Amino acid sequence: MSDDVSQFAPRSSTEEVEEGLAFAPKFDADGLVACVATDARSGEVLMVAHMNAEALAKTIESGEAWYFSRSRRALWKKGETSGHVQRVVEMRVDCDQDAIWIAVEQAGPGACHTGRRSCFYRAVPLGKPGAATLEFRERDKAFDPTQVYGGPASRRR
Amino acid sequence: MSDDVSQFAPRSSTEEVEEGLAFAPKFDADGLVACVATDARSGEVLMVAHMNAEALAKTIESGEAWYFSRSRRALWKKGETSGHVQRVVEMRVDCDQDAIWIAVEQAGPGACHTGRRSCFYRAVPLGKPGAATLEFRERDKAFDPTQVYGGPASRRR
Repeated sequence: MSDDVSQFAPRSSTEEVEEGLAFAPKFDADGLVACVATDARSGEVLMVAHMNAEALAKTIESGEAWYFSRSRRALWKKGETSGHVQRVVEMRVDCDQDAIWIAVEQAGPGACHTGRRSCFYRAVPLGKPGAATLEFRERDKAFDPTQVYGGPASRRR
Repeated sequence: MSDDVSQFAPRSSTEEVEEGLAFAPKFDADGLVACVATDARSGEVLMVAHMNAEALAKTIESGEAWYFSRSRRALWKKGETSGHVQRVVEMRVDCDQDAIWIAVEQAGPGACHTGRRSCFYRAVPLGKPGAATLEFRERDKAFDPTQVYGGPASRRR
């Protein structure tokens, strides 16, 4: 499969991008779109990651989530080391087509490489200017990441 | 208010960032973090946008959503022209602290500048390689954007 963006429609007028039926994703200067993954059953936000053209195409083709790691500069399939793959139930694109939302069936006990169900396990208190102290909303781990991944944190996919 | 990132905690070890209580958001090379806003009642994803340090600080301080427009290179308050402000019910940060999730009470009939409830009103069909044809999930507009904003699309906030 080509990682070329040419497999998607070209960007045309604002009217066409917002009201039309052509899928013309807008990749940023680094070739990425933001993607939010929610649990298709609970609606909970599981993670926010990025996709390049190849990750987006692979996700559409396979029905399983692929991402692009900004830190490792590499394509990765969610669950490729943990088995915690994400089956995409529905993919949506936003008005200006620079963000993707996927509702997924998350395999295994959690999506987060730290062992939690969701990556968003801490809250930021509001109303307090200055340095905030986070509050855990899901402190306990749903799985032991050292057992599941069996390697260093940098290889947790 | 300063738009300096120094009001947040410094980034330290991976262990501290992932398991600690210090709020140390990781802004990208453009000084931004991705932010997903969901409807606090329905759980629906309303929009994905970006925050710089100042937008993040203003959101925390005021309890209403502020963003940073990448295209206009400007801070903006959601609802500043439409009245469709977002009251933040809860703010979360993800494991590596480079993404924000806010659950909001959306004022008015919708969040999207096109007039829909959510910006994600079109689905991308799966399993079809190549150019996809989008499918509307919410075609009708919840409000008339030309009436609500009373100006050109570039001023819809």
